[in-house]
Formats: sequence, structure tokens, C-alpha cells
Amino acid sequence: MLYLVRMDVNLPHDMPAAQADDIKAREKAYAQQLQHEGKWQQLYRVVGEYANYSIFDVASHDELHTLLSGLPLFPYMKIHVTPLAKHPSSIR
Amino acid sequence: MLYLVRMDVNLPHDMPAAQADDIKAREKAYAQQLQHEGKWQQLYRVVGEYANYSIFDVASHDELHTLLSGLPLFPYMKIHVTPLAKHPSSIR
Amino acid sequence: MLYLVRMDVNLPHDMPAAQADDIKAREKAYAQQLQHEGKWQQLYRVVGEYANYSIFDVASHDELHTLLSGLPLFPYMKIHVTPLAKHPSSIR
Amino acid sequence: MLYLVRMDVNLPHDMPAAQADDIKAREKAYAQQLQHEGKWQQLYRVVGEYANYSIFDVASHDELHTLLSGLPLFPYMKIHVTPLAKHPSSIR
Amino acid sequence: MLYLVRMDVNLPHDMPAAQADDIKAREKAYAQQLQHEGKWQQLYRVVGEYANYSIFDVASHDELHTLLSGLPLFPYMKIHVTPLAKHPSSIR
Amino acid sequence: MLYLVRMDVNLPHDMPAAQADDIKAREKAYAQQLQHEGKWQQLYRVVGEYANYSIFDVASHDELHTLLSGLPLFPYMKIHVTPLAKHPSSIR
Amino acid sequence: MLYLVRMDVNLPHDMPAAQADDIKAREKAYAQQLQHEGKWQQLYRVVGEYANYSIFDVASHDELHTLLSGLPLFPYMKIHVTPLAKHPSSIR
Amino acid sequence: MLYLVRMDVNLPHDMPAAQADDIKAREKAYAQQLQHEGKWQQLYRVVGEYANYSIFDVASHDELHTLLSGLPLFPYMKIHVTPLAKHPSSIR
Amino acid sequence: MLYLVRMDVNLPHDMPAAQADDIKAREKAYAQQLQHEGKWQQLYRVVGEYANYSIFDVASHDELHTLLSGLPLFPYMKIHVTPLAKHPSSIR
Amino acid sequence: MLYLVRMDVNLPHDMPAAQADDIKAREKAYAQQLQHEGKWQQLYRVVGEYANYSIFDVASHDELHTLLSGLPLFPYMKIHVTPLAKHPSSIR
Repeated sequence: MLYLVRMDVNLPHDMPAAQADDIKAREKAYAQQLQHEGKWQQLYRVVGEYANYSIFDVASHDELHTLLSGLPLFPYMKIHVTPLAKHPSSIR
Repeated sequence: MLYLVRMDVNLPHDMPAAQADDIKAREKAYAQQLQHEGKWQQLYRVVGEYANYSIFDVASHDELHTLLSGLPLFPYMKIHVTPLAKHPSSIR
Repeated sequence: MLYLVRMDVNLPHDMPAAQADDIKAREKAYAQQLQHEGKWQQLYRVVGEYANYSIFDVASHDELHTLLSGLPLFPYMKIHVTPLAKHPSSIR
Repeated sequence: MLYLVRMDVNLPHDMPAAQADDIKAREKAYAQQLQHEGKWQQLYRVVGEYANYSIFDVASHDELHTLLSGLPLFPYMKIHVTPLAKHPSSIR
Repeated sequence: MLYLVRMDVNLPHDMPAAQADDIKAREKAYAQQLQHEGKWQQLYRVVGEYANYSIFDVASHDELHTLLSGLPLFPYMKIHVTPLAKHPSSIR
Repeated sequence: MLYLVRMDVNLPHDMPAAQADDIKAREKAYAQQLQHEGKWQQLYRVVGEYANYSIFDVASHDELHTLLSGLPLFPYMKIHVTPLAKHPSSIR
Repeated sequence: MLYLVRMDVNLPHDMPAAQADDIKAREKAYAQQLQHEGKWQQLYRVVGEYANYSIFDVASHDELHTLLSGLPLFPYMKIHVTPLAKHPSSIR
Repeated sequence: MLYLVRMDVNLPHDMPAAQADDIKAREKAYAQQLQHEGKWQQLYRVVGEYANYSIFDVASHDELHTLLSGLPLFPYMKIHVTPLAKHPSSIR
Repeated sequence: MLYLVRMDVNLPHDMPAAQADDIKAREKAYAQQLQHEGKWQQLYRVVGEYANYSIFDVASHDELHTLLSGLPLFPYMKIHVTPLAKHPSSIR
Repeated sequence: MLYLVRMDVNLPHDMPAAQADDIKAREKAYAQQLQHEGKWQQLYRVVGEYANYSIFDVASHDELHTLLSGLPLFPYMKIHVTPLAKHPSSIR
């Protein structure tokens, strides 16, 4: 099942650079692993913002929440999830 | 270049059914043609709403506006466009 | 899978009473059938509003959209869907 | 009487982990006790968010406020309460 | 139990004056009857708007919804209900 | 003249408990004095929130602002004031 | 006492021009009479909008509501009222 | 002086096509005349919407309001005006 | 030219009282000087809020921005500016 | 391709003045370089706010995001991007 997910990142300005770099590195590895597994299907940057729009393909709400709440940046993000259904005019 | 587009349809309740059916049929043909051309890459229904999220891949803002304003449902839709950039963690 | 759904009804004031009564009667029958099937698990009136909060339990996004877009009142409703996951403190 | 309650948690980033763990442990015990008493009837995680939707069944507004303001996480939550009435199409 | 209720009236401009007058007259009689019964405790005009803030004192959510949905102006109003609890600093 | 006032309290999480207790104690005394004087006519807790709805009866805008800005919690509150007029259907 | 009032006018597009002209002429006469009486102290057009910001100086909430609800355009306006107090840095 | 202006057009669906075409033709001529006069400096389409962002350069608020309220589409537009000042980092 | 300006002040709670007092004293002197010069024509307190509505009469957008950005409280305020034009029904 | 960009700056109040001055100096140099290159075509101050509206002319979404995310003030700004298309009534 597909979900559109928007994530807005908001790191505290007083977080030490080393800590921020570590979180971002782990976030990147985690995001790429989920992409390789086919669960995080698409990942785009919102132009001009520290934010992304993503499309996830997972088996259940519970699986999606487990994936999202496991993101290293999760405590610093505002996330909104929209469930997507098949569109009758889609050719896919 | 990629754009995320959300379209919300709002047909007047007093539109004759034949007219609505005609518009919807032309909309579907138009949407499928653009998908076959690779410009309307993805098309999803927002669950529970007469709305869609789509991803377009076109050469310019002008091309996207020409495509969207040519939609048979255009006069009856609220459309919002978000430009998307490559995300540094995307594997694609 | 569970979804919280809010529906706000807005019937046109110039709809003939007989037509409105017919739609409402079909809506009620449809809603009760889905409740008996266990898909529309809960249905509550929002106090003071022509609106409801409901909980659906269905197998997929596509099934939910099919159910909701089949509501006789669908053309006259604003619907918002929130996917629900298991809460770690829930005893159920 | 039934109430739909949405709670959004926002813990300060500089709260020591031990303190956060203690608050969460007490919150969980408290939530489960109220569920066993039948007052906190349902508790769901909003997918992708540190938030929940809940349904409470209590005797009065005062009782609900006492329960909610007693939550260990209360000082760190934004809470919104919606009173629910019986829906004429509900089969329950 | 107490509820704060805000009602915003929006009569269609093409409603015949006689019909509007009739609805308003019935609304007034209904409102005054509920005030005499002690259920509609307070009723104030929002300055400059065709709207009111009211305080109701009723036994249950169901009773309040029955009262509000019985208002002759109900089909033409946007209503929002806020449940009120006893305040620890109140002297009443 | 009557005013509906909503106050939302937001104490900083790092305020020492003794300081918070002192402010709350002074707030309570101040609120009760104004109630005894008949100026703060009603005071209700918004269920589930650290907020209140109140009705003030004072002689002028200036008097109301003086009373509100003198609240010990004033620096920590978001306040919104709505002027209320007599409603033609009110029996009082 | 002073009030800041914003009025947004929204005339139905199908109102006959003669009716609209008549309403506007009566509105203008009414507005100018209240200005001559010193009650409608200031009247400004919001640039680019069919709207105004005004300052009224009246004796009570009730008087203001009577004046505003008597405006010929009242049924076609959205009005918002903000009570104004003396500012400690004002030299007037 | 410069102003950023956003205009959103909303033509009634029941306006006869000939009338709409006439209004649009007059709007275009008017817009081009103001551009030739240097007052309507820039005019851009918002991608996907029947809306524009424009920059006007006029001598006063009154002149801008006269120009905007004279637009043939003015009765069918929602307009928002933002005054612009020189930016200290601008090289112009 | 006239502008309606709303300013909302939000001083950090950890600012030392002496610093806050100094800023407020300089703000008051600055505000009164601009009033004596006729540029800050009116200054009102929004009842119940640490905010004001003001009317400025200056020669240009640049002059207004220079005045506002020079306010000692400027770094701690949210400011919104609305340009005002002459109203055809104004008698002034 | 053209984009309208709004940037709202929000520097932390506890940032040392020397650090803020350094960031602003680098921001100014960066902004002026991009203007000289013709990519940051226009840059205006929003009157009364620490914000700007800008028009960028770049080859792609990716280029715009690279430019914006390279701004020294980027971590302290809220940015919103609107893609602009050619308007049929524009004479340019």
C-alpha cells in the first residue's frame, strides 16, 4: 500500500555540529537501506526547504509507523502522512 | 524536472450528468495520454476525497502550466504545485 | 487496518426534500450494512454539527476509498482520513 | 458519555533521557490503568506522529478534565477534545 | 454539564423574506423556551456579526445535540461546541 | 459591558516549581478577588487544556485591559477578547 | 470607546445592478451620517480589496452592534471587531 | 513605489461564454496598457492556478487601488497587496 | 500615505528585567517622538494582548520600513502592514 | 525559469552579535554575487518584516535548491517557493 509522506526537519540551533552530523549520517544510511528494500520508494527534496516528500510502499499502517518512528531525525521532524489509493485514470 | 501536484475537484451540483460524464471521459483520455507520453508520471487518488496527488516530469514551468490548464476539469479544480529537487539521500 | 474518518455533510439548500430524504435513507441503509459487515466499526455524531467521526477497519486503502466514494452522500461531503496504528500503551 | 481526544506530545529536546523515560513509564501505567477501568476506551497512534487519537467514556466533563490533567505527559501535550453523541445510523 | 457554543448564521440571499421571517420567529420562540427551561443558560450576540456565543447546561452530549439540531436555523448555521469544566479558581 | 475572554497558559518548562507555584497562587487570589467584585463574572476550564473561557463585566475597554494585563500569568498567556452585545432572543 | 472594525463586502454576482446601486447609495449616506455624528471616526479602503478598516467611537457594545447591523450592506459583509484600549505610549 | 500583488480569479460557472470572453479581452487590453505605461511592471502566471503574481510601480496607495478596482475582472478576483521596500543587499 | 500596522510583542522570558525595562523605555521615547513628528498618527493597545494597532502617515514604503526596523522592540515583534487608500464614502 | 521566493529570517535572540554580523555579511556578499550573475533577479524587503520577496531565474529546481540551501542564513529562514510561468497578457 502507498502513502505520501511529508517530513519537515527542524534541528535545534544549539545542537553540536558533531551530533548533527552523526544523526544525518545515520538518517542517510537508514533512508538508503529502506529504499534498497523497496519500502521507501521515492524521496524528493522540497525546493528551498529542509523538507522532503516521499512515497512509501509497505504492508500496513503499523509497519509504516515503525519505519518512520525509527528515523534518527524522527524527534526533530514534523511528519504528515496521506494514504493513497489507485486512481481510475492511472495506467499503472 | 519533477513537480508534485495536488488537484481537488469540485463539480457544481447542478451540472447535468451528461455534461459531467463528458468532462470526466475527456479528462481520463487526456490524463492517460500524458501518462503514456511520460509527462504525468504518477497519479494517485487521495483516500476518501475527490482529489489526487500526481507527479509530473516536464521541461519547464510553462509546459506544466500548459498541460494543467488544458485539463477538461481545470475550471472545476483547485490545484497546488510544489517543485521537487533531487534529495541527497535518494538512491535514484 | 484502522482509519479515523471525519465526514462533514453539506446538502445544497435548494435540493428538494424528497431527494434529500431519499439520499439520507440510502445512506443510512448503506452505513448500517457496512457496520454489520464489521468494516464501519464505529460511527459517532459530532455534537452540534452535521458531521461524524467514524472508525473503519478494512484491508487496504483501495477498499476504504471504494467504500467511502460509494456513500450516497459522498458528493455532498468533505471527508478527511487519518490512518491509525497500534499504540504501545494500548491494552487491546 | 464519549469524547474523541487528540493528544500531540512535544518533549523538550534538552530533557534528560532518564527523566523522559520515567515520565513515559508513568504515562504508560496510568494509561493502562484507565483502560482497565473502562474510561479510556480506545487508544491509537497517529501514523508517523508522536500523537494519539483516543476515545474516553466518562461521566462528566469534570471527570475527563481530571483524568487528562493528571497525565504525566500533560505539561508536554497539546490536547483537543470533541464531544461525541449517538449517531442515528449507528447500530450500536 | 456546561458547554460553550458558538453559532454563525448564514441565510441564503435568495430565501424569500417571508420564509426567513418565519424561521427567525420560530428560532426565537424555541430559544426562549430553552432559556426558560434553564438549558440555554446564556445567549449573547457577537458584536458586528450574525453570530452568538451561548452557554448550555444539559445532562448529556446527546441532549445537547438534540437541542441544537432542532433549532429552526440549524440547516443555515455553522456550530462549534466546547465542553467546559469547573475551574479551580472559580468561586461558584 | 460583557466580554468573552479566552486565555491559554504556556509556562516555560524550565521555570522553577517554586516560582510557578507562587505565580499560580497569586493568580488564584487575583482571580477570586475580581470575581468577588463582580468584574470576572464567570470562569470555566476548557476540558483537556490549560486554558479558560471567562466572561468579564466591566465599564470600559481600558478597565478590561488593566485587569487582564495585571494577571500574574499575563506574560505567559495568549489572550483573545470578544465583545458581546445583548441578543434579541435573550430573556435576560 | 474605540473599536477597530474590518468589513469585507461580497455582493452576489447575480444581484441586479439597480439593486446593488441602491444598496451602495444607502450605505454611503448611512456611513456619512455616522461620520458626521462622530461615531464612525475613520474609514479607509484596504488597497486592492472591496473591504475597509474603520474606527468607531461609541458608548457601548450594544450601540456598535446596532450601528453595524443597520448597515445596508450588512447582509453581504463579513465583519470583525477588535476592541482598542489606550496605549501607554500614546501622546493623545 | 513597488507593490507585490497576487490576484486569484474565480469566474462563476454559469457566466455565459461570450460574457466571459468579453471580460477577459478587456482585462488583457487594460493589463497591457498599464504595462506599456510602466505601472504594471511585471505579470506572471502562478503555475497550475488561475492566478497571477504582479509587481506594480505607482505613485501612491490611492493610484494602485484605482488601477486594481478598475480591472474588468475585479468583481471576480481575490486580491492581496504587499508593499515592498528597497532591500539593503539589492544591487539595483 | 497611510498604513495600518499591527505589532505583536514577544519578549524572551529569560531577558533580564533591567534589559527589558531599558528597551521599553527607549521604545516609548521613540514612539512618542514619531507621534510628535506626525508620522505615527495613532497608537492603540489591543485589549488583552501585548500588541498594538497603529496608523502611520509617511511618504514612502522605504520610510515606513526604516521607522519600523528602527524600533527598539523590532527584534522581538511580529509586524504586519496593510496599505490604506482613501474610501469613497469617507468625509475627510 | 522564474521562481517567486519568500524568505522569513528568524535569528535566535541568544546568538552573539559578532556571529550574527558575520552571517549577515556573508549573506549580503552571497546575495550580491548571485544578483551579478543574473540568477537572483530581484530582491525586495517586505515592509515592516525581517523578510524578503525575491525572483530567481535559474535553469532547474536543483539549481535553485542548491543556491537557496547555500545561503548563510538558510538554517535560520523559513522559505517558500512558487514557480512562475509566462502570463498570456504579459508584454515581455
